[in-house]
Amino acid sequence: MTAKEVQAIPVPTLRRLPSYLRFLKKVQAQGRDVVSCTHIADALGLDPTQVRKDLAVTGIVGKPRVGYHLPALVEAVETLLGWNNTTDALLVGAGSLGTALMGYEGFREYGLNIVAAFDVDPEKVGAEIHGRPVLHVDQLANLASRLHAHIGIITTPAAEAQRAADLMVAGGVRGIWNFAPADLEVPDEVILESVQLPASLAVLSTRLAAALREDEQGEKSDGSQ
Amino acid sequence: MTAKEVQAIPVPTLRRLPSYLRFLKKVQAQGRDVVSCTHIADALGLDPTQVRKDLAVTGIVGKPRVGYHLPALVEAVETLLGWNNTTDALLVGAGSLGTALMGYEGFREYGLNIVAAFDVDPEKVGAEIHGRPVLHVDQLANLASRLHAHIGIITTPAAEAQRAADLMVAGGVRGIWNFAPADLEVPDEVILESVQLPASLAVLSTRLAAALREDEQGEKSDGSQ
Repeated sequence: MTAKEVQAIPVPTLRRLPSYLRFLKKVQAQGRDVVSCTHIADALGLDPTQVRKDLAVTGIVGKPRVGYHLPALVEAVETLLGWNNTTDALLVGAGSLGTALMGYEGFREYGLNIVAAFDVDPEKVGAEIHGRPVLHVDQLANLASRLHAHIGIITTPAAEAQRAADLMVAGGVRGIWNFAPADLEVPDEVILESVQLPASLAVLSTRLAAALREDEQGEKSDGSQ
Repeated sequence: MTAKEVQAIPVPTLRRLPSYLRFLKKVQAQGRDVVSCTHIADALGLDPTQVRKDLAVTGIVGKPRVGYHLPALVEAVETLLGWNNTTDALLVGAGSLGTALMGYEGFREYGLNIVAAFDVDPEKVGAEIHGRPVLHVDQLANLASRLHAHIGIITTPAAEAQRAADLMVAGGVRGIWNFAPADLEVPDEVILESVQLPASLAVLSTRLAAALREDEQGEKSDGSQ
């Protein structure tokens, strides 16, 4: 599949792929060889039509009344995700979030291997976090290109994030996973994916604030208590 | 605004509110009192029509050729987000991600105050993380209801997440911010917002894998090197 074809896959479909993979592997671990579209849909609370459409992007089609051949489907999803190859990543910003990500064992399952962290804090530079070295940011571009690290993870404060991205791009990083609450600019050929925690919290807290306001008004109009 | 009216606000609009707020506060800190829609749109790389539409959900309308009155707009955005009141939160899963979230100073700006963490690990229970106690999960429902904690944050492994959510709901938690890679079921009156790191990584890694495959094919067809 070309990069353009992958670009054309809807983002919600891409975002569901890990759930599918997790479920398919679970069924496979139970010793099964085949799984139906309806079974997947029921387990994940999705519509069967949606599941069929989502999984079609892998190029694998289920057999009518039988279902998907599990080994083929698992491999196709992993190949599409690129999770059957290990990708080396560099992380900039060795604070608490950066440290947490470096210690997260689950990333191995996703083929993500954080090989080094970078920071500007003299107390952090030279230390090790979860067995990986913390180097000075000045070495970032140079090391990224020497290691052919394809992914850069940004966990700096917002004000430092663009500089981190620029250094990654200079070092040949092709994909940036940004956790800083900042809007970054990168060249077209670099893939940028941001995890915006404030944006996610905004959805939760706006709805919660409205619900709590209603509770209060309900209590007032009750007149009691 | 009622909970139903907030429900009707598009999620992308809600997700952009923190960016607006950050920018509006920055302009305000520069001593300005008024900001135009175009100015906001340029700074955030958005379309002015989109900005006008997004900000209209706060009930504040800009004056033609003048713009928005900054103090009123900042207050309206903060009120809608519920970030001008502090909301107490409990966190379940005092691992590396939970610890990182507890240490994240930025949450104060969002009115989020994590008052305690819960875990099952005897080595963690009884300890303190960033000045907050780690308690046994068995105490969760009881403490949530005594403290009137409105938000629950789940940073457990996937297999433990549903149990954590059930205990939070039993304790009267009204909003759950879930970081575990699990699909949770909660009653309708509880607001659930999930930060799916694998889903985010899937978008990045699928596109990266496709781009890298193309690089390889390009090199092969070059014939050289």
